[in-house]
Amino acid sequence: MTKVIKNGTVVTADLTYKADVLIDGGKIIEIGPDLSGDEVLDATDCFVMPGGIDPHTHLEMPFMGTYSADDFATGTRAALAGGTTMVVDFCLPSPGDSLLDALKVWDNKSGRAACDYSYHMAITWWGEQVFDDMKTITEEHGINTFKHFMAYKGALMVNDDELYASFKRCAELGATPLVHAENGDVVAELTAKLLAEGNTGPEAHAYSRPPQVEGEATNRAIMIADMAGAPLYVVHTSCEESHEAIRRAKMQGKRVWGEPLVQHLVLDESEYFNEDWDHAARRVMSPPFRNKQHQDSLWAGLASGTLSCVATDHCAFTTDQKRYGVGDFSKIPNGTGGLEDRLPVLWTYGVETGRITMNEFVAVTSTNIAKILNCYPKKGAILVGADADIVVMDPNAKKTISASTQASAIDYNVFEGVEVSATPRYVLTRGYVAVDNGELKAKEGHGEFVARDPNGTVNTALSKWKDLTAPRPVERTGIPATGV
Amino acid sequence: MTKVIKNGTVVTADLTYKADVLIDGGKIIEIGPDLSGDEVLDATDCFVMPGGIDPHTHLEMPFMGTYSADDFATGTRAALAGGTTMVVDFCLPSPGDSLLDALKVWDNKSGRAACDYSYHMAITWWGEQVFDDMKTITEEHGINTFKHFMAYKGALMVNDDELYASFKRCAELGATPLVHAENGDVVAELTAKLLAEGNTGPEAHAYSRPPQVEGEATNRAIMIADMAGAPLYVVHTSCEESHEAIRRAKMQGKRVWGEPLVQHLVLDESEYFNEDWDHAARRVMSPPFRNKQHQDSLWAGLASGTLSCVATDHCAFTTDQKRYGVGDFSKIPNGTGGLEDRLPVLWTYGVETGRITMNEFVAVTSTNIAKILNCYPKKGAILVGADADIVVMDPNAKKTISASTQASAIDYNVFEGVEVSATPRYVLTRGYVAVDNGELKAKEGHGEFVARDPNGTVNTALSKWKDLTAPRPVERTGIPATGV
Amino acid sequence: MTKVIKNGTVVTADLTYKADVLIDGGKIIEIGPDLSGDEVLDATDCFVMPGGIDPHTHLEMPFMGTYSADDFATGTRAALAGGTTMVVDFCLPSPGDSLLDALKVWDNKSGRAACDYSYHMAITWWGEQVFDDMKTITEEHGINTFKHFMAYKGALMVNDDELYASFKRCAELGATPLVHAENGDVVAELTAKLLAEGNTGPEAHAYSRPPQVEGEATNRAIMIADMAGAPLYVVHTSCEESHEAIRRAKMQGKRVWGEPLVQHLVLDESEYFNEDWDHAARRVMSPPFRNKQHQDSLWAGLASGTLSCVATDHCAFTTDQKRYGVGDFSKIPNGTGGLEDRLPVLWTYGVETGRITMNEFVAVTSTNIAKILNCYPKKGAILVGADADIVVMDPNAKKTISASTQASAIDYNVFEGVEVSATPRYVLTRGYVAVDNGELKAKEGHGEFVARDPNGTVNTALSKWKDLTAPRPVERTGIPATGV
Amino acid sequence: MTKVIKNGTVVTADLTYKADVLIDGGKIIEIGPDLSGDEVLDATDCFVMPGGIDPHTHLEMPFMGTYSADDFATGTRAALAGGTTMVVDFCLPSPGDSLLDALKVWDNKSGRAACDYSYHMAITWWGEQVFDDMKTITEEHGINTFKHFMAYKGALMVNDDELYASFKRCAELGATPLVHAENGDVVAELTAKLLAEGNTGPEAHAYSRPPQVEGEATNRAIMIADMAGAPLYVVHTSCEESHEAIRRAKMQGKRVWGEPLVQHLVLDESEYFNEDWDHAARRVMSPPFRNKQHQDSLWAGLASGTLSCVATDHCAFTTDQKRYGVGDFSKIPNGTGGLEDRLPVLWTYGVETGRITMNEFVAVTSTNIAKILNCYPKKGAILVGADADIVVMDPNAKKTISASTQASAIDYNVFEGVEVSATPRYVLTRGYVAVDNGELKAKEGHGEFVARDPNGTVNTALSKWKDLTAPRPVERTGIPATGV
Repeated sequence: MTKVIKNGTVVTADLTYKADVLIDGGKIIEIGPDLSGDEVLDATDCFVMPGGIDPHTHLEMPFMGTYSADDFATGTRAALAGGTTMVVDFCLPSPGDSLLDALKVWDNKSGRAACDYSYHMAITWWGEQVFDDMKTITEEHGINTFKHFMAYKGALMVNDDELYASFKRCAELGATPLVHAENGDVVAELTAKLLAEGNTGPEAHAYSRPPQVEGEATNRAIMIADMAGAPLYVVHTSCEESHEAIRRAKMQGKRVWGEPLVQHLVLDESEYFNEDWDHAARRVMSPPFRNKQHQDSLWAGLASGTLSCVATDHCAFTTDQKRYGVGDFSKIPNGTGGLEDRLPVLWTYGVETGRITMNEFVAVTSTNIAKILNCYPKKGAILVGADADIVVMDPNAKKTISASTQASAIDYNVFEGVEVSATPRYVLTRGYVAVDNGELKAKEGHGEFVARDPNGTVNTALSKWKDLTAPRPVERTGIPATGV
Repeated sequence: MTKVIKNGTVVTADLTYKADVLIDGGKIIEIGPDLSGDEVLDATDCFVMPGGIDPHTHLEMPFMGTYSADDFATGTRAALAGGTTMVVDFCLPSPGDSLLDALKVWDNKSGRAACDYSYHMAITWWGEQVFDDMKTITEEHGINTFKHFMAYKGALMVNDDELYASFKRCAELGATPLVHAENGDVVAELTAKLLAEGNTGPEAHAYSRPPQVEGEATNRAIMIADMAGAPLYVVHTSCEESHEAIRRAKMQGKRVWGEPLVQHLVLDESEYFNEDWDHAARRVMSPPFRNKQHQDSLWAGLASGTLSCVATDHCAFTTDQKRYGVGDFSKIPNGTGGLEDRLPVLWTYGVETGRITMNEFVAVTSTNIAKILNCYPKKGAILVGADADIVVMDPNAKKTISASTQASAIDYNVFEGVEVSATPRYVLTRGYVAVDNGELKAKEGHGEFVARDPNGTVNTALSKWKDLTAPRPVERTGIPATGV
Repeated sequence: MTKVIKNGTVVTADLTYKADVLIDGGKIIEIGPDLSGDEVLDATDCFVMPGGIDPHTHLEMPFMGTYSADDFATGTRAALAGGTTMVVDFCLPSPGDSLLDALKVWDNKSGRAACDYSYHMAITWWGEQVFDDMKTITEEHGINTFKHFMAYKGALMVNDDELYASFKRCAELGATPLVHAENGDVVAELTAKLLAEGNTGPEAHAYSRPPQVEGEATNRAIMIADMAGAPLYVVHTSCEESHEAIRRAKMQGKRVWGEPLVQHLVLDESEYFNEDWDHAARRVMSPPFRNKQHQDSLWAGLASGTLSCVATDHCAFTTDQKRYGVGDFSKIPNGTGGLEDRLPVLWTYGVETGRITMNEFVAVTSTNIAKILNCYPKKGAILVGADADIVVMDPNAKKTISASTQASAIDYNVFEGVEVSATPRYVLTRGYVAVDNGELKAKEGHGEFVARDPNGTVNTALSKWKDLTAPRPVERTGIPATGV
Repeated sequence: MTKVIKNGTVVTADLTYKADVLIDGGKIIEIGPDLSGDEVLDATDCFVMPGGIDPHTHLEMPFMGTYSADDFATGTRAALAGGTTMVVDFCLPSPGDSLLDALKVWDNKSGRAACDYSYHMAITWWGEQVFDDMKTITEEHGINTFKHFMAYKGALMVNDDELYASFKRCAELGATPLVHAENGDVVAELTAKLLAEGNTGPEAHAYSRPPQVEGEATNRAIMIADMAGAPLYVVHTSCEESHEAIRRAKMQGKRVWGEPLVQHLVLDESEYFNEDWDHAARRVMSPPFRNKQHQDSLWAGLASGTLSCVATDHCAFTTDQKRYGVGDFSKIPNGTGGLEDRLPVLWTYGVETGRITMNEFVAVTSTNIAKILNCYPKKGAILVGADADIVVMDPNAKKTISASTQASAIDYNVFEGVEVSATPRYVLTRGYVAVDNGELKAKEGHGEFVARDPNGTVNTALSKWKDLTAPRPVERTGIPATGV
């Protein structure tokens, strides 16, 4: 049973052309004019693009004895509804726990996924076991990315020496470190000060994590990665300060990637000043939304390539869960949704305005991510041999975003009321038609784990350069005897 | 008669994989394992890459009653010898002349080309005829790029109002302006001052064109392009000052590309201080070579994407021609060779050191150029349907560069004595094997003109954004009567 | 008849201390505790500061057959009313005219001045006569600053080669060039385009001179000054782009000063969107007002020292004069008032908020200016021997700015309705009490010309460095014979 | 017994003028022409300047059971010999110790000082006692500056939360925090790695503390100070990375000062590659010497005001002491001399070349320091009432620096062989002539402690701005009930 996507315009990260796409056994087997297959998906007037990859989700994430509301089943349904065909979630071992045990926990959850997925492994503590586990994880479990939290002091946060040790280990293994870049010490101090001063509402969440705090941590992580000889991927780059640090690093030849979230590109800090507590609290995430100036910076980064990927940090909590933090903003669970909306919203605010091209849209939502995470061209490509993870985007199928019609399990949507100009007509996950002429037919458990090898091309090149420029001792004769 | 490149590793701007490449009728017709063809080119242990594109050459360029020594015959032979399969030359109408007439002159020369070629059209003056010719050139003659000289006062240089007018015309036509960015007024003043002070040697050429003078002009051209609504391509970006201006522009969402030359990446200003006048004079080009700090900046730009292409500005003058300038550096013809050496030298200093990846090497020598100039994927790609412009690079075939063995017509080589670690085993130009197992078999007249359409994706997106953000009048009632 | 200012707190650019100030013969003769004099001015609870110096005014400036409304009489009255005791006006020779003739014209006007004054001489064309006149002006007429307009094409604007020639001449004479930095070519083109598109209102004035256009010209002037070996003073620095260029230059050791206007620090572009045409037109000046982001940049520059002076560019046109430009914004006379308001407004928005210290207030309104213009400590100082140009500022004397109560001759005030927190209790101009307990008693004709010598300390140091690092020829033997 | 300095040219941070200076009772009592006194010091052809203030010394600093070789007696002798009349040393409580106890220890040492001195108090740990002691120290002991080490892990280093707490305490007290900015975690890791790899020589000290490590810490300290509402003084700013962070902060209106050392301005990293182990080890200090590019950055900072002071970090260890680190660079005591050489060396490389003016020389060696540390104009000024701390610099008295003729107690000099173009003819410390016509007559025990008050003008202005812009709660009604 082959399928053929007919009459569409293929749009990839570097090409736009008319062609049909023939699919068999979950893979693309032919691309060209006038193809036929057993089942025909009509893409007339549509763009046939690699399915979105969201490199940053937290599905069924443990939190204060409960979990983020979207699990692998509902989260990946939401993903597919919006044209995203792969998610990369974070395995989060508790400090002291084995990475391998955490992996098992995540494997237990992800079996219900409706689209393919992979993991980043978090390094939440340091020790010989972690050092050893990293090798096993990289070499035997298909994970080449390790996440580090510079915030969430007392919970997930690691210190500079731990960052250095882990980044160095990444360099040895050909893996890539990721950072959540906010200065956790300062956030903790500001939080305490704000609460003490009566700043208890959701807006104080934003006050407690100003752009400087993110920029500082980004800058620090970049230096540490450079010293350790590793490239660096900075998640949820939300502000000019952080973007500036990334640009400055690139200017020095360092290998750093930045990942804005679609929320930060479009929504701003005024959301926190909404008089409705629920409205504000639902937008609480870290980093918080910023202002237009920061948004302009992020958009420029996407167009110029100093920022590489657009993600969501999808970590959906219900209004009830958000209300844990009434009277104390620091207890509002951090996270918003977005998986379902990323592609349509970015298309509307990016492609429709001319801020980015269609090809750049594909690059930042899919192809760049697959390359950086080293699963390209299995993912992120419309190429013969690639997985048939495809979104057929209809640029004329407008929709108004609403919680009432979304696939996500939560009761609101931070983009409520936004009219998007394009939505998926078809979405295929390894050949399975999960959105069929606009109708969601996600199949729980269809998703498979995507193993990703270490030693990507950038890792390899960087190691070569670091070896070439490593410090060398000065040859000396006649060294004096040691002093007292 | 098909040809197949067997047992190689295909390296493109975004992929590295084992595959054979089958060629017929000058095009790639299949890529995959175990292909067969009538003729077999063995690529064992080699990299099969898109042929180089040099976006910046001056073949048989008129100068002081003579011409640059490499013409389309010898120049493209040199190109092919080094793995470059397409050159983009500059049509240079004299001020007052019709663009169409200049085009005819260039067409007369290019008939002898051994590889494919295209043209940039220079705008060396402004008037209604130029305004009209630009449309004809773009719409009927396959040229979508217009070059502007901000230097060479009294000859090719145009002023800011002419730049604006031409850039605006480019924006209307969907074409892209190019600039040679040096402040011609200041260069002229410094030149006069240096000569008056007895600084007559080739080193004074470098003194007369310091980095600031280039950075200033780059910054100015960027502003003018932004005001005119056009993207901008800056040729021969040689220094941090110019690169900084480009980065700053990108940071603001502007669409600007920078093109370092391989000479500037590898050679430095100390060449001009050589005690041998000929040695120094042979290196005279504009901009001149810079120092290591500038080189580091350029390499970082290539790795990070703030610079996009590597060219040569190949404009070869013999030692005899260089000696026009004995006693007056300003009469030394500006230009060096490099066409034959660009790929091997960049591979050696870039890929072998780990400063750039193999994929980035392909991007900056070929694919990015094809995309920016809007002839991708006809050129710059290893894809089915693309022209069979291919270089099979042997990473173990070392060579020491020497004028005595080069294809170029001149009597020296600025890279004399440099040992390169890789050289082409095969080079194909639209299927014709111009380098066959290391032996040069370039065929004069084989080359064809490559027409390039306007309205590339970036041009289109930028126009959309400019329209969206164009100034709008304030609606007012009760406007007073005009004053006296 | 001595005067003594009693019981005040002396505030200078680097000190704050309690002291009385004794004045005789127009000069300060003693500073210390418990002084007595013939006349006592009570400064209890007040700050005794050097009188303001406005380095940038256009009094009775010729324009389209008429003149700016404030002449030397009314303009200097306004200055004194607001605590400014010296103005530096611009002699504007028409292109082709002798500088010395222009000086005579200005001398004829300035005789009515109520406070001291000096001139900058404008270079509006280039030729041997100008070259010669510059020496005379500098050596015999006490003018060490030369102004250059990079805008106002077809009128005052000079080109890059003229800038270079004049800057070089300044370097030789120990004088300092000033620039009005906007790209006049681009402004002219944008103006024509806007008018053609029906953008005729005052807001289009702002559209025609965006920050990039100013930033570009600033950057260009800096480069040219550096090549010519001169320091540079950039007038009316209004935006981050221009400030960035200045900062970048300073980072390279260049000697550049920037001068924001008090209007740009406080008023923003929304003024041009006012529905009242007159309101908008009254704010038309070049550069136009910018937005809050630019204001933040300027304030940071004042606090950090990357910007040096606060001026007004006082060039007052009446509403009737402004209405010349109804239907064509390009005919609205450029200029606003501010002389009277500079000190109180800057105090209120700067010192009262803590953005700048009191000492920095004195520095940027008076002392820095005197130093840069080389008339310190005759002016800009509370020192024994200095001219008794003093403002006694009462930090509790609030006032609401209004055209109805101002000294300026025009019928509106761009700061109308602004409540300032401090106003002068006394203002002394060479010992004469021009504001006496808040009452204006300016005396027409009291003002004298302040001669300023060339070869300030910075000019001298820069020349030394430029000589030390000047290009030197390479010594060569065996230079070949000249080519054909 | 009055003294008069006759026939000299007074040079201050903002003035240069001919005048005599009359001294009585340790203070300047008159400045002017033709003064007479009991004792005449002839300053013909000399510059009469405020005595140097070195804001950064470590005299008799405890180290590994011994002490730095110059104590308050020899160190201040050396200071006076070179024209420095005040030093600010660091009280270093051990972690856990009371600040007040440390103060007593320092008071015991400083009694032998030959010139005046003050202290910075180091915060090497955090706790309620430190919190309380800071108030006592500030309010009762005349210390308004607190030093924090971000390096020296396991010894003096404090973490980010301790930095924040202490900086916030400084803000409350009107004090100013200082930082030694290097990332101690990373230095420790790099040190361990280098030693493990056999990089044991003095050059590895430089490898272990690259510019990025300093730049990062500077950037971090700036952010933390901004969050805490305090200004920041960064000691021994040695590199562009750190200077860049300071410039970027200033660009945002933050109050940050940078202090290059004279060593970093003049000496470079090649010293560590010297084949003589002793030569290299004697130059070991933190941060290490950098390269010419960094030096250019520092000089530009001094000229432009983005860097404020020139210090020495004088901490002199003998060759024998240095040899503790044979075989393990991390055991080489960190520190070099310089107190005696700072003024002559900076004059020679700065004023003589034109890189800085004479007035800037005074500013960065004396006046700026006094202002920032809040002891101006008692110190750092040639003003009536100021302490008679004066250096009479003879710009024609050349000298070749040599350990054999120096006042310092150590057996080498890092500037050995440097010819300086100016040396002091007279040096006065509170009126006492410690250098008399070139002869050193320092008097042990003459020095007095200089108390410095909190709440400098910048501290006060910054507090005002921080209050004005502090976060405010959103007013809300209808806040929901807390969640589960």
